[in-house]
Amino acid sequence: MALRLGRLGSGPWWRAVLGDYAQLRAASPRCASARVCQLPGTAGPQPRRGLGYGPWARGGSRLGTGLAATLAGLAGLAAAAFGHVQRAEMVPKSSGARSPSPGRREEDGDELARRCSTFMSSPVTELRELRRRPEDMKTKMELMIMETQAQVCRALAQVDGVADFTVDRWERKEGGGGITCVLQDGRVFEKAGVSISVVHGNLSEEAANQMRGRGKTLKTKDSKLPFTAMGVSSVIHPKNPYAPTMHFNYRYFEVEEADGNTHWWFGGGCDLTPTYLNQEDAVHFHRTLKEACDQHGPDIYPKFKKWCDDYFFIVHRGERRGIGGIFFDDLDSPSKEEAFSFVKTCAEAVVPSYVPIVKKHCDDSYTPRDKLWQQLRRGRYVEFNLLYDRGTKFGLFTPGSRIESILMSLPLTARWEYMHSPPENSKEAEILEVLRHPKDWVH
Amino acid sequence: MALRLGRLGSGPWWRAVLGDYAQLRAASPRCASARVCQLPGTAGPQPRRGLGYGPWARGGSRLGTGLAATLAGLAGLAAAAFGHVQRAEMVPKSSGARSPSPGRREEDGDELARRCSTFMSSPVTELRELRRRPEDMKTKMELMIMETQAQVCRALAQVDGVADFTVDRWERKEGGGGITCVLQDGRVFEKAGVSISVVHGNLSEEAANQMRGRGKTLKTKDSKLPFTAMGVSSVIHPKNPYAPTMHFNYRYFEVEEADGNTHWWFGGGCDLTPTYLNQEDAVHFHRTLKEACDQHGPDIYPKFKKWCDDYFFIVHRGERRGIGGIFFDDLDSPSKEEAFSFVKTCAEAVVPSYVPIVKKHCDDSYTPRDKLWQQLRRGRYVEFNLLYDRGTKFGLFTPGSRIESILMSLPLTARWEYMHSPPENSKEAEILEVLRHPKDWVH
Repeated sequence: MALRLGRLGSGPWWRAVLGDYAQLRAASPRCASARVCQLPGTAGPQPRRGLGYGPWARGGSRLGTGLAATLAGLAGLAAAAFGHVQRAEMVPKSSGARSPSPGRREEDGDELARRCSTFMSSPVTELRELRRRPEDMKTKMELMIMETQAQVCRALAQVDGVADFTVDRWERKEGGGGITCVLQDGRVFEKAGVSISVVHGNLSEEAANQMRGRGKTLKTKDSKLPFTAMGVSSVIHPKNPYAPTMHFNYRYFEVEEADGNTHWWFGGGCDLTPTYLNQEDAVHFHRTLKEACDQHGPDIYPKFKKWCDDYFFIVHRGERRGIGGIFFDDLDSPSKEEAFSFVKTCAEAVVPSYVPIVKKHCDDSYTPRDKLWQQLRRGRYVEFNLLYDRGTKFGLFTPGSRIESILMSLPLTARWEYMHSPPENSKEAEILEVLRHPKDWVH
Repeated sequence: MALRLGRLGSGPWWRAVLGDYAQLRAASPRCASARVCQLPGTAGPQPRRGLGYGPWARGGSRLGTGLAATLAGLAGLAAAAFGHVQRAEMVPKSSGARSPSPGRREEDGDELARRCSTFMSSPVTELRELRRRPEDMKTKMELMIMETQAQVCRALAQVDGVADFTVDRWERKEGGGGITCVLQDGRVFEKAGVSISVVHGNLSEEAANQMRGRGKTLKTKDSKLPFTAMGVSSVIHPKNPYAPTMHFNYRYFEVEEADGNTHWWFGGGCDLTPTYLNQEDAVHFHRTLKEACDQHGPDIYPKFKKWCDDYFFIVHRGERRGIGGIFFDDLDSPSKEEAFSFVKTCAEAVVPSYVPIVKKHCDDSYTPRDKLWQQLRRGRYVEFNLLYDRGTKFGLFTPGSRIESILMSLPLTARWEYMHSPPENSKEAEILEVLRHPKDWVH
């Protein structure tokens, strides 16, 4: 699927950083298209050694992911504390930012600057620091989440055609910060949020104890345990009841022990929440994710698909939030590079797994009854996010968190009716059946 | 304030139990009016010895109420597990249930049956059991919460004028049950729920341990700790943004130790959540509650008013859910009778504190902007109830709970906008200021 560069392709922020030359490639439609669809360095197939997840993993257990997920919340929707927020300037629609500026020259030497020029804002970490450690996983992951954010925002803005993403840059007093992009009340989307965060500091004693409780012995120095957490997280709520809600989150975590030993792991997932069941969409979504997983090993998709069904379970309703996708945590093997490569493949699968579905249905006709059922399902989404989602709760209960970045996951509108129960054999009952008894969509 | 008997005055349930004679007094408008406004036995002023709350109480501490509140959730909105639900039949509007049936005789001897005939449904406990122990606090409290439920439902149905309460009776497999009354999408009310529950059984080991953790040493017998919990709980969401939301809950708890020693306590409160600030309404609401409290001691209102401000705090927003009222827990002194008398006075204050306000504003004109702000505030209500309210959370996480009775507290509709911030000096900013810095409304 070829995507054209959205109007958010290049913001004024990077002109100041990079100078004029950086506009050239970002502004070339053909080049930009390739950049949005395919991340640099992934042009050809790579040898895969298969993928595992380490001793902390509790694949398939809803309760087993524990602290890794909650801490990882820092790097996702549950964005961390901040001291300063700045709304980035948007490129005006008529600014012609997408057109190449004649007479500007490309400097081949600064690949990093060119990559950054396509982002929604400059990376959280300063460019000189990223340049200093190009092979560090923290650099690779930060660039990857920035690229994913830009990729998804552009694809969604293009589908919406009317509303823009606002771009909020925020800093975390204790270290790091984030960029929160939200498109609200558009033509196609009720609310679409894509947020990245890159935070670092020291784990609290309580967090370190929790990790010990999970079998991980971490040696602190003066009770301190330095950590870095980063991730991209997104929830997309379209207006049309036949266009499903989608959520994804990919994150990376590092903890450094007193003896210099570093523990690291990845986590993430992507899942779909339709108002009504559409078999074709469900198969497309799951098949796209399976194909991404299969590149890294044949047992990954079945395991992470089940983990997803188990995680997004609204216990008190006895139903899943949606029709699932993939979910994983504590991914710390076979190697950092292999695990990153898997996560990158998953992140690249977000747009092709979802955007064709929303394009297909965003103009479907619907009735007030359809809208009402969508609103009731939105209510269940709120219930899951506020009652069960560990990232959301961890973020909310962390003093100084950026609440607006955490709660951008909530829908614009939701509804709760007492004792609502759809008639038997209705299309509402059809989706409920699947939410109660998850299906295998691809084999 | 004299209230006329609403159309829900007498349901068919009690005809079967009591026989025809019971209709007579319930159907007399004058008598019914008195019955709705004033509970039997409270005709004259009673000597007050002042009121305290025992060693478990942590007046003013948001986190201090602990288990008493969570367990008490069983008896409130967080209604307990159930095995069977039955929707009680409503009296058709045209059934003439309010008119006396000539030729039916009144039997003076059965005061209990006559009291019960005004309830929304028969009490959870069988009448013969209630008759067997008329002086037991469990009997007095159950009748009081049934009366409060009927009183509030009638007053609200009268104000609405169009929509009816549905009456759902449910049984709890482990012992007891409840009656949930909900009026939804009426003329005046978006959603109004008034629920009672009377449950009993054995405390789990975990619950007993929590109580020990709070300094209460409870002697179990074969690891069992029999308990009874009962209460009335209600959340009323009007449609008009100028008519505030109101919540109340009054509850009673008994735990019986192996040596026969019984621990008991009361809890409850009543609080108002306006979309916009109306000083006059705020003063009326707080003054009515203060007058109720003052009948039992001069220090009660200030203490319970502060406790309320502390409890209904949405930590991550830095704001209270509303403009407060009263809240208390662990009320176990000076005597069971005195504490009950206080709780009864509070329950009787619900209708006069709230109904005049909703009557005054239910036909106010309003703009789409007013409605939008109301919807955003509804979102905050959902956040408090799902993230912080101990009763709700305890109920939802208790396997087999009656979810619909717990979540009837949620509004029909709610809204979340990213980074919504009202303009300075607006009426939206005015109420936010009060939610951030609670005021003393009466002295």
